[in-house]
Amino acid sequence: MRILLLALLGVVFLACATACAEDTAEDVAGQILALERASLERWGNGDPEGYLGTMAEEFTYFDPSLEKRIDGLKAITEFLRPLKGKIHIERFEMVNPSVQVHDDVALLSYNLVEFEKQPDGSEKVTSRWNSTEVYAKIGGEWKLIHSHWSMTKPELKPPDAAEEGN
Amino acid sequence: MRILLLALLGVVFLACATACAEDTAEDVAGQILALERASLERWGNGDPEGYLGTMAEEFTYFDPSLEKRIDGLKAITEFLRPLKGKIHIERFEMVNPSVQVHDDVALLSYNLVEFEKQPDGSEKVTSRWNSTEVYAKIGGEWKLIHSHWSMTKPELKPPDAAEEGN
Repeated sequence: MRILLLALLGVVFLACATACAEDTAEDVAGQILALERASLERWGNGDPEGYLGTMAEEFTYFDPSLEKRIDGLKAITEFLRPLKGKIHIERFEMVNPSVQVHDDVALLSYNLVEFEKQPDGSEKVTSRWNSTEVYAKIGGEWKLIHSHWSMTKPELKPPDAAEEGN
Repeated sequence: MRILLLALLGVVFLACATACAEDTAEDVAGQILALERASLERWGNGDPEGYLGTMAEEFTYFDPSLEKRIDGLKAITEFLRPLKGKIHIERFEMVNPSVQVHDDVALLSYNLVEFEKQPDGSEKVTSRWNSTEVYAKIGGEWKLIHSHWSMTKPELKPPDAAEEGN
């Protein structure tokens, strides 16, 4: 009986050690970056289904076009699906990505820079974004639970002259 | 021996059950909202030490004034500490806060609306923010590991007339 128990404990320890080995922060960072890059590539080709396919039911979302947060997979699907075929990003760079891993949560943050070719062959930056993408392991899969997109250092419209004068 | 083992298992289960009971998502949400509100109140009174005191070493930060992310407690301290006494928010509201809890991570998102009293006694909205605040339990304490602040639906400066004409 005692030997059986020890053997069982041994199996449990081995299983745990294997699971832990699979989950180093470095491995997770690699998986998360690959997931995000794949979604971005599809997005840049006018296909929102990459992002939509990684989002969890509980997904929450901020972007600069919105008065308030979008909550839930159904609502974000209704928001993003009509953009199919309307987005085209010629080239992008994920600048300085950071992945902070805590248990089954991986917090990715980076700057996204989008480029467009000019008639003279040079490239022009069309947009710069601050991006926070929070992934959680749900049912063994990394799912996106929150996105926050904002413009990097946006140039704001000056306040109205009338207001300025007061 | 077997009885001792069973008793030990019982103690372990009880300890686990107690720990789990302490960590319901609802309780965590309450703790996180209280932490954030306390930091915001100090911030609105010109005191950045509330936020600084909750931040983890690994803290990362986006806001609209920055060309790129601020990484680490030392860098954010150098950025926020000089603002001491320079911020004054008369009144704020945390609108529609959501706390998504996964293991030892709590992801808070909300809209912050800031108000100022006008000479006629009415209140004017001075700023609207989208806020993502990611907390992780580190050494038994909830610490802020990431903040992303952006303006809600900012009004952008129109592109230059010269560019528009082309």
